[in-house]
Amino acid sequence: MRWWGWGDPAHSSALPSHAMEFLRETVGIAARPRPPVALEQVRLAPPELSERAVTALRGIVGAEGVRDDHGERVAHAAGKGYPDLVRLRAGVPEGAPDAVLRPAGHEQLRAVLQECARSSVAVVPWGGGTSVVGGVAPLRGEHAAVVALDMGRMGEVLELDRQSRTVTVQAGIRAVALERALAASGLTLGHFPQSYEYVSLGGCAATRSAGQASSGYGRIEQMVLGLRFVAPAGEIDLAAVPASAAGPELRRLLVGSEGTLGVISELSLRVRAAPLERVYEGVFFADFAAGVETLRELAQQRACPEVARLSDQAETRMSLALAGERGIKGRLGRTYLGLRGYREGCLAILGFEGKSSEIASRRKRALALARRGGGLAVGRSPGEAWLRSRFSAPYLRDELLTQGVMVETLETATQWSNVQALHRAVSAAIAESLSAGGTPGLVMCHVSHLYETGASLYFTFLARQREGEELEQWRAVKQAASRAIVSGGGTITHHHAVGRDHAPWIEDEVGREGVAVLRALKAELDPAGIMNPGKLLP
Amino acid sequence: MRWWGWGDPAHSSALPSHAMEFLRETVGIAARPRPPVALEQVRLAPPELSERAVTALRGIVGAEGVRDDHGERVAHAAGKGYPDLVRLRAGVPEGAPDAVLRPAGHEQLRAVLQECARSSVAVVPWGGGTSVVGGVAPLRGEHAAVVALDMGRMGEVLELDRQSRTVTVQAGIRAVALERALAASGLTLGHFPQSYEYVSLGGCAATRSAGQASSGYGRIEQMVLGLRFVAPAGEIDLAAVPASAAGPELRRLLVGSEGTLGVISELSLRVRAAPLERVYEGVFFADFAAGVETLRELAQQRACPEVARLSDQAETRMSLALAGERGIKGRLGRTYLGLRGYREGCLAILGFEGKSSEIASRRKRALALARRGGGLAVGRSPGEAWLRSRFSAPYLRDELLTQGVMVETLETATQWSNVQALHRAVSAAIAESLSAGGTPGLVMCHVSHLYETGASLYFTFLARQREGEELEQWRAVKQAASRAIVSGGGTITHHHAVGRDHAPWIEDEVGREGVAVLRALKAELDPAGIMNPGKLLP
Repeated sequence: MRWWGWGDPAHSSALPSHAMEFLRETVGIAARPRPPVALEQVRLAPPELSERAVTALRGIVGAEGVRDDHGERVAHAAGKGYPDLVRLRAGVPEGAPDAVLRPAGHEQLRAVLQECARSSVAVVPWGGGTSVVGGVAPLRGEHAAVVALDMGRMGEVLELDRQSRTVTVQAGIRAVALERALAASGLTLGHFPQSYEYVSLGGCAATRSAGQASSGYGRIEQMVLGLRFVAPAGEIDLAAVPASAAGPELRRLLVGSEGTLGVISELSLRVRAAPLERVYEGVFFADFAAGVETLRELAQQRACPEVARLSDQAETRMSLALAGERGIKGRLGRTYLGLRGYREGCLAILGFEGKSSEIASRRKRALALARRGGGLAVGRSPGEAWLRSRFSAPYLRDELLTQGVMVETLETATQWSNVQALHRAVSAAIAESLSAGGTPGLVMCHVSHLYETGASLYFTFLARQREGEELEQWRAVKQAASRAIVSGGGTITHHHAVGRDHAPWIEDEVGREGVAVLRALKAELDPAGIMNPGKLLP
Repeated sequence: MRWWGWGDPAHSSALPSHAMEFLRETVGIAARPRPPVALEQVRLAPPELSERAVTALRGIVGAEGVRDDHGERVAHAAGKGYPDLVRLRAGVPEGAPDAVLRPAGHEQLRAVLQECARSSVAVVPWGGGTSVVGGVAPLRGEHAAVVALDMGRMGEVLELDRQSRTVTVQAGIRAVALERALAASGLTLGHFPQSYEYVSLGGCAATRSAGQASSGYGRIEQMVLGLRFVAPAGEIDLAAVPASAAGPELRRLLVGSEGTLGVISELSLRVRAAPLERVYEGVFFADFAAGVETLRELAQQRACPEVARLSDQAETRMSLALAGERGIKGRLGRTYLGLRGYREGCLAILGFEGKSSEIASRRKRALALARRGGGLAVGRSPGEAWLRSRFSAPYLRDELLTQGVMVETLETATQWSNVQALHRAVSAAIAESLSAGGTPGLVMCHVSHLYETGASLYFTFLARQREGEELEQWRAVKQAASRAIVSGGGTITHHHAVGRDHAPWIEDEVGREGVAVLRALKAELDPAGIMNPGKLLP
């Protein structure tokens, strides 16, 4: 993974000329490209882990399991949020772990936490390092040092129970590696966040992630049946029972704890038959309202495809513009360019996965509902285009940053009766904040992740960077959007988690007494307060 | 509700002669009937609530909201578990609340808890009073007095959001009243535990209840989207968002807290379109293993009916015997009595609910899977018989007790790969314990509440009561069964909750550190320890 951005360094992300043109005309780009500095130019303070602690930790995880060289520290200096990348590309991360630890199993993990508690060393659990909310920022709180606890050496599949359709894994396993292992048995987990190519399952569980196909496969917390959790104060093993009434659901307390209570060591996950076929297609709606109503019908009539997402007008226009001439050929092109009533329309992607025979009947039912809601099926090319590029937006972000364009995403969820009002309120708050800062931008949104009672709203916005004030610019928009979300009845995050960036709003979410409960949990499981300081709690 | 047993006093529960004959031949009955004592013969200690506390509480809920007469105290002296009924029928409950309080709204509820914390009065939250695990036992712990907090005056529907399919209610609302209110809008909650005719929704949520149709409609924790929770230390309001990634899921901590942390005051629940049609039918399997495999296929192929339950051989034989000649007429009778290979078979009930057209295709698919698994469809009469009598087992229990027969149920859940082993282990443990006590019994079981990864096992057993030692007899079986469950990999309870009866096994379920977490939660929310003492925690 590129230390200053996303993904495979070999992956080219240069923008095509029509896209550059579009950006120049809409938000403006920098006078000259702004590439990242070289790795050796990144400025870090010298590591501060005491000799005693280093020796003790080497005794636990071996010399190869404790690294403090420049490259390792930079690679673990931040997650992949916009402010992270702004700082990294400029060579001035806000800090770095004093060392990177890689335990090779459950017992080593437990011993590491005990040693860190003893030595007052803060611990930042590290899966794929893809947090976009500051969830892996190397904050030390009141401790003398901070380490990144990289779970990369705990990536085994421990047990596959084909009959029960469950798999037990070490929490450091990458989603890609797990899918590969499951595919050999004709199974899938079905968890595909945009960060899929890099995430670990432990990270997904710790942050209550939802994959792009969550409308069909569910959220990670619906997949996690059992877990083995290591906290400084002790361990909690919860067996993988399908359901229980044995008191408060501790599983759902540990899932979502974002490394602030301890570390997930092992997970038992529900898996499903791998789909034999995938059909992804486009449906065009005359306006956003009609599309939202159709998605609601799909969810409430239990006719939901595995993937269902509806771009608003701005996002539809933007994606067609970025796709260029080639992208809007065929039925979609004729529709978009030609038909009265759809010129300012909204594109939905519906993706069905399963056995061919079942897909056929499910598609028929869903498309009938879409037609009844005014939708116009425009064939498979938009769906297939989406499927091909579903994990590539973070590459695009790197290129936009090089061109001096800020791009950021944020998300929420709300009940169906509030989807449109919240869409308007948050879009307006973002647009106004950008304009007020002198960099009017593009604000777009899609509805995705459908539930019977509501859905998520995922906002993307672009604006020209205010050079030298990138973080202030970002912070103003983030605050405006978050205020609009909490005052508009949305959750502060649907699947990005709280991390550091949303921590100021967690009290709006769960109240003063809810925060007190979270603190009481932390006091019990992490009395020394070493676990991921500065995250989750305000 | 009968104070000494179940349900409407006008409901007759006399056993037909062939059922009496069956009992006499199998487990034996008492020499003469053992009716309950008269209400005035129930022995209670005088109420111990101080004058000061009574005055303060009257000031909050009004004089009519504080009752301490004999009838009210007896009616709130116990839940509806077997040991409860044994004690009540003999006129010697283990205690009674010193008063019964009925707050008339959220503010009164909050003030009551604060007053009780101030006065060191233990509080037992009371919904329908139907707990079968000692969940409403009037235990005072270290406090001077104990009150039952009856939610009966908090039963309003507060808001119905038809678009989002959510309803917000006061937590004291009865399930029957809610279904009636929803039916007027063509909606249903779909939560039908066996205790449906009496339960409150707050009680269902506090105990993580699962209705008989949970395979289709889900468990109560999947229905609860938002809640308003009052603890002695403060309040937690969680908005009804469809999903969130905002940290540990506090909703799932409060649901299932069994009154030990505070009281649910209001709930927002997911609702669905009321079914336009119900088709319930029987399928016969040659043996239990074949039936289990078919239920697994239904769940994993996502072809699950709303209700799916499979009786083992013993339960099948028993229900046909109790149904008598009339009950086994027609196709089922010919099958059971006539066909080779099904003589010792197992009966499954599959119940489909929804629109006619959808039911038709879902039935077709499910029955095809059942046939492939060796199942023989035997028509609607067994399904309709089950549907008619789905809430009547507790009446039957009263009559069995009158005849000197112990009848008790207990339940667990486990993954599919363990269903048969756990079925054998728990059945054997119960049977051996009964035999060892000199009262060999009938032990039967059904699989119900299907999940993709597993299912519940629900055991019923009958034996002749050991007169004068009924509670010792019960305790020995309960312990044997619970040990078999926890050592066999099941959860200690799938939907009956922990209460007092399962509290000794909660540490087996969540571990020592899990219990420490529950205690830390309690210390935060209920520092004086007044909330439902002696429940949930060991």
